[in-house]
Amino acid sequence: MPSLPEPEARHRLTVARSGYLATASPDGAPHVVPMTFAVVDTAADTTVGTTIYSAVDAKPKRSPRLRRLANVAANPAASVLVDAWDEDWSQLWWVRADGRGRLVGVGAERERAVAALRAKYAQYLDHTLDSAVLAIEVDRINGWTAQL
Amino acid sequence: MPSLPEPEARHRLTVARSGYLATASPDGAPHVVPMTFAVVDTAADTTVGTTIYSAVDAKPKRSPRLRRLANVAANPAASVLVDAWDEDWSQLWWVRADGRGRLVGVGAERERAVAALRAKYAQYLDHTLDSAVLAIEVDRINGWTAQL
Repeated sequence: MPSLPEPEARHRLTVARSGYLATASPDGAPHVVPMTFAVVDTAADTTVGTTIYSAVDAKPKRSPRLRRLANVAANPAASVLVDAWDEDWSQLWWVRADGRGRLVGVGAERERAVAALRAKYAQYLDHTLDSAVLAIEVDRINGWTAQL
Repeated sequence: MPSLPEPEARHRLTVARSGYLATASPDGAPHVVPMTFAVVDTAADTTVGTTIYSAVDAKPKRSPRLRRLANVAANPAASVLVDAWDEDWSQLWWVRADGRGRLVGVGAERERAVAALRAKYAQYLDHTLDSAVLAIEVDRINGWTAQL
């Protein structure tokens, strides 16, 4: 059960097109949603300074989608998973980033996050992206592969 | 943001080849892993009686993979997500099953679970499947689709 070297794990996290965000309510109910995201590194060689940004459609009429935001507001612990599925299980791998989530307010950081999301996803060029932006400060990146 | 009708959500959950299991420690740290699983319905028309089984390689030397088991032992709340990624975001959908996890001991239920896993995954025919089996009793299935 080999671990992925950290630079390789970080690379796979960064280029992954979609991932899964797990949060938990203060009373321990886990919540998991698919998400698009962009990884922004303010220090290239270390996990410190790595932030995962995602846009969260937080319009009031769509309140069920806000559960991740309510969770991180009350309990910032958050985990982001990316992986590859393959029917050939010798090809399986995953990378998980654990950290702390927070809502990004209006301002320069939000502009940088939106720019990073638009740079990664052409789909966001057609969106106004007036949604909430969630930041996850990464504390730890772990990766696993069925084969090195 | 249309919801998937429950029968359709249930169908997509059942046929999905892989999913994501979220658990949380008693102090609220979320944990998410990819998993293969089989859905077993003891009552076809209702969520009551729906169980999601997965095999967990619980060999002592691989203890990091046991975190989901430690979590459900201390806090049974568990959530299973399946989805489809598509660069055309009008094709996106997901289904989530929330419930309660427990470890399945040796006995008839474990045999049924292993049979269901082997029926779904030819890959398990080559495995001894001497691993732990996790059951998640489903309380609720929700689904979302970008378009109906």
